[in-house]
Amino acid sequence: MTSNVAVIAGAGSGLSASLARLLAKEGFSVVLAARNIEKLGALQAETGAQAVATDVSDPASVERLFDVADKAGPLSLVVFNASGRARGPIAELDPEAVRQALLVGAYGGFLVGQQAAHRLIAQGAGSIFFTGATASVKGFAGSAGFAMPKFGLRGLAQSMARELAPKNIHVAHFIIDGAIASVSSGQEPGPPDRRLSPDAIAEAYLSIHRQHRSAWTWEMELRPWVETF
Amino acid sequence: MTSNVAVIAGAGSGLSASLARLLAKEGFSVVLAARNIEKLGALQAETGAQAVATDVSDPASVERLFDVADKAGPLSLVVFNASGRARGPIAELDPEAVRQALLVGAYGGFLVGQQAAHRLIAQGAGSIFFTGATASVKGFAGSAGFAMPKFGLRGLAQSMARELAPKNIHVAHFIIDGAIASVSSGQEPGPPDRRLSPDAIAEAYLSIHRQHRSAWTWEMELRPWVETF
Amino acid sequence: MTSNVAVIAGAGSGLSASLARLLAKEGFSVVLAARNIEKLGALQAETGAQAVATDVSDPASVERLFDVADKAGPLSLVVFNASGRARGPIAELDPEAVRQALLVGAYGGFLVGQQAAHRLIAQGAGSIFFTGATASVKGFAGSAGFAMPKFGLRGLAQSMARELAPKNIHVAHFIIDGAIASVSSGQEPGPPDRRLSPDAIAEAYLSIHRQHRSAWTWEMELRPWVETF
Amino acid sequence: MTSNVAVIAGAGSGLSASLARLLAKEGFSVVLAARNIEKLGALQAETGAQAVATDVSDPASVERLFDVADKAGPLSLVVFNASGRARGPIAELDPEAVRQALLVGAYGGFLVGQQAAHRLIAQGAGSIFFTGATASVKGFAGSAGFAMPKFGLRGLAQSMARELAPKNIHVAHFIIDGAIASVSSGQEPGPPDRRLSPDAIAEAYLSIHRQHRSAWTWEMELRPWVETF
Repeated sequence: MTSNVAVIAGAGSGLSASLARLLAKEGFSVVLAARNIEKLGALQAETGAQAVATDVSDPASVERLFDVADKAGPLSLVVFNASGRARGPIAELDPEAVRQALLVGAYGGFLVGQQAAHRLIAQGAGSIFFTGATASVKGFAGSAGFAMPKFGLRGLAQSMARELAPKNIHVAHFIIDGAIASVSSGQEPGPPDRRLSPDAIAEAYLSIHRQHRSAWTWEMELRPWVETF
Repeated sequence: MTSNVAVIAGAGSGLSASLARLLAKEGFSVVLAARNIEKLGALQAETGAQAVATDVSDPASVERLFDVADKAGPLSLVVFNASGRARGPIAELDPEAVRQALLVGAYGGFLVGQQAAHRLIAQGAGSIFFTGATASVKGFAGSAGFAMPKFGLRGLAQSMARELAPKNIHVAHFIIDGAIASVSSGQEPGPPDRRLSPDAIAEAYLSIHRQHRSAWTWEMELRPWVETF
Repeated sequence: MTSNVAVIAGAGSGLSASLARLLAKEGFSVVLAARNIEKLGALQAETGAQAVATDVSDPASVERLFDVADKAGPLSLVVFNASGRARGPIAELDPEAVRQALLVGAYGGFLVGQQAAHRLIAQGAGSIFFTGATASVKGFAGSAGFAMPKFGLRGLAQSMARELAPKNIHVAHFIIDGAIASVSSGQEPGPPDRRLSPDAIAEAYLSIHRQHRSAWTWEMELRPWVETF
Repeated sequence: MTSNVAVIAGAGSGLSASLARLLAKEGFSVVLAARNIEKLGALQAETGAQAVATDVSDPASVERLFDVADKAGPLSLVVFNASGRARGPIAELDPEAVRQALLVGAYGGFLVGQQAAHRLIAQGAGSIFFTGATASVKGFAGSAGFAMPKFGLRGLAQSMARELAPKNIHVAHFIIDGAIASVSSGQEPGPPDRRLSPDAIAEAYLSIHRQHRSAWTWEMELRPWVETF
C-alpha cells in the first residue's frame, strides 16, 4: 500500500522540520525541496523524507521536484514555505534583491501551486497550503521588499482557493504573526511561549488539511498570546 | 474531581447542539442558555447539560446564568452563539426590531463576554468564543438589520482578543460563511456537503480552544467547499 | 428658488461646525441636530442654520428632525456624526453605558439613515454619510465600548451603500484616523498639522458628495501625515 | 518659472490620457512613459507632454525616464499606471506570462516608486500614486495571474505609504472597481454611467494630490453606482 505524499517546498529548520516530523509520524511520505539540501541530512534520517534540490523560481526545477514526488505515491498535501525578502528602506533597496524576492516568494508560489494543481485536479482531492507572514496583510514602513512578495503570494492563494475549492481541492493561507521559536529562544528573557512553537504551527496545518469539506478555512492566522496585533 | 465548565449562550439545535454533545463527550460540564429552555429537554437528557432560561440582553439575567455556571465548577469555555436579526430593505425595517437585534446580537455578546471575562481573568485562563456570520465582515444589500449587530459583535470580539490575550484568555471569532446543515437538508438537491456540518464546526471550535498559546488564532472562517466567496 | 438641504446629526464644534460653515458657504440650507442645541447659537448665527434638539436614539425625535428638514427644501446630504462611547477595560465597563453607546452610536445611525433613505429614495438622488473612527475597523485593547458601536455603524453603512447605490443614492463611510485639531492644539508641542484639520475633513466630505456617479467611493480614510497606522 | 512635473508611467488611452489632460490644464509639465510611445502622438500634441519609451521592469530604463523628468522641473506627482496580467485558470497559465505580469505589474511599481522616492525625499514633498483594481484586494477564481501582481503592488504601496508619509510624501493606492468607459461604451446597452469615466477618476487623483497633509487618504476605491461589490 502506498502512503500519501506531502511536498514541503522551502525546507530547512523551524516550521518545515516540524511539519516533516509530524507528517512522517502520521504516515505521509515526505518530499522536501530546498535550494541547498545538504543541510537536510539529519531531518531526512529522522523522517525518511526524500530531499530534492530545487530552485522554486525555475519552472524546470519545480517540474523535476514534482516528478520525484509522483514516484513516491499519490499527492495529498503541498506546502509552499519558501520566502523571499529584501531588507531596507525603499530608497536603499537593491533592485536585483527585490526582483529575486519577488521571483522566489511570489512567482515560486505560483510555480509550486500550479504543479500541485495539475496533479490534485486530476485526482479530485488534496490540499495546497501557503505560508504567509504579518507582512502578507500589512505593509510596514521599511518592509516594501517583504510586503510585495508576501501580498502577491496571498493574492495567488486567495484566487486559487476560490478556483479550486469547488474541485475539492483545499487551498489555505497561513499568517504566521510573530517569530518562530528556535532552540536558542528558550534562553532569552521574556514571558513563556512568546515565540510560536513550530510544532504547534504544524499541528494547525494538519488540522486544516483534515477539515471536513463542508467547513473549510481558507485563511488562518497564528500568533503568540503576548504578541501585539 | 470537578469537570471544566462550558457555557453555551444561545442554545437550540444546530451548532449549539453539536457543541454541547462534543463538549460533554470530552468531559466538560455543559451549561446551556436560551430564552426558552423547554426545547432543550432532549439535548439535556443526552448530554447531562444544565439549562438556564436567559435573556442575553438583560444584565441581571446574564449574571444569573453565570451564577449557575459558577456552581458547576471552574469555567473553561464560553461560547456566545445568540444572534439578532431584523430582515428587510433599509426603508422597511421596523425600528424596534432593529433595536432588539442590536441588543441581543451585540449588547448580549458584551454582557456574556464581560461575565466570562470577570471569571477567566481571576482564574488566569480560559476561552471566550463568538459565533459570527458572513454578515460580520460584509454588509450586503438588504441586510442592514443583520450586518449592524454582527459587525458590532466582531468589534467587541476583536477588542476583547487584544485586551485579554496577554492575560492568557483566548478570545476568538468564527465566521460561519454558509448555511448550516439540518436533518432536512440531506433531502434537498445539490452537491454533497454543500451545507456546513454542525459537528464539523464544533470540532473546529474545540481545536481552537485547545491551541497552544504560542500559536493562537483570533478569527477563523468556515465555509463549504462549494460556497462562493 | 429653494436651496438644497443638508442635515448634520451630531452637531457641536469640530468637524460638524466646519461642515456647517462649508455647506452654508456653498449654498446649502443647513439643519443641525444635537441633544443640546443651546451651544449651537454662534454657529447658527454664522451659517444661518436651523437647529433641532434631537435624541438620535429615539425614533420619534429623529422623525421630528426630518420633518423640520422637509420644510427647508429638497434633501441633498445627510451626515451622521453622532458617536457613542463607553470607556474602560472590558471587566470594568458599565453595562448601561455600553448600551447607551450602542443605541446612540449604531442604532442612532440606523434611525437617521432610514429617515434619510425614505426621502432620498423618493427623490432618486442624494448622499448619506457616516463618520467613523479608527475603532470602526480595529478593535483596540480597552476599547470594546467604542469598537462595538463603531463596527456596527460601519456594517450599517456598508449594507446601505450596497443597497442604495443602484437607486442613485451615495452612501459613504469616513474613517477619521487621528485626533481632530481644536483651537488649543496649536499651542501644543509637536510637528505641524499633526491633528486633522476639521476644515480639511469637511472639504473631503464635500468632494465625495460631488463625485461623478460613475466613480463613487464608499469608504474614505483620513489621517494626518505623521499618524502611525 | 518652472512648472511642477507629473510623471505618468503606463500611458496610453483611458485613465492615463484623462490624467495627462487634466494635469496639463492645471499647469503641470507632464512626462508620459510607455513601452511604445508612437501611439501617444495625439495626446502629446494636445497636452504638450513629453513621452519617453520605457520598460518599467528594467531598472536602467526607469532611471532614464526620471533623468528626462529631472530636466523638466521639480517633480511633484508620479502615477504608476502600468499593469501586468496573465489570463486563464491556474492550471493553464503560461509561467513565462505570469513572470512577466509580476515583473511589469509589481516590480515595475517598485522601480518607478523607488526613483520617485529618491527625488521626493530629497525635496521633502510630493505624491506617488499607484493604480490598482478589484483584483488588488480580491483574488477571484481564474485570476491568479492578475491578483498576484496587483496584491503585490498594493503591499508595496502600503509599505511606502507608512514609510514616506512622515517625510511629507503622500503615497496613495487607488482601487478602480469596474470597467473604464471608452468612446465605444456609450453605444452599448445598459444604464448610464455604468462604466467609470476616466475624467472622473483623474479628478479623484488630483483631489487626493491636493489633500491637506493633516487629512491624507492612503487608499481610495472608485466604482460606478451600478457596480456590484
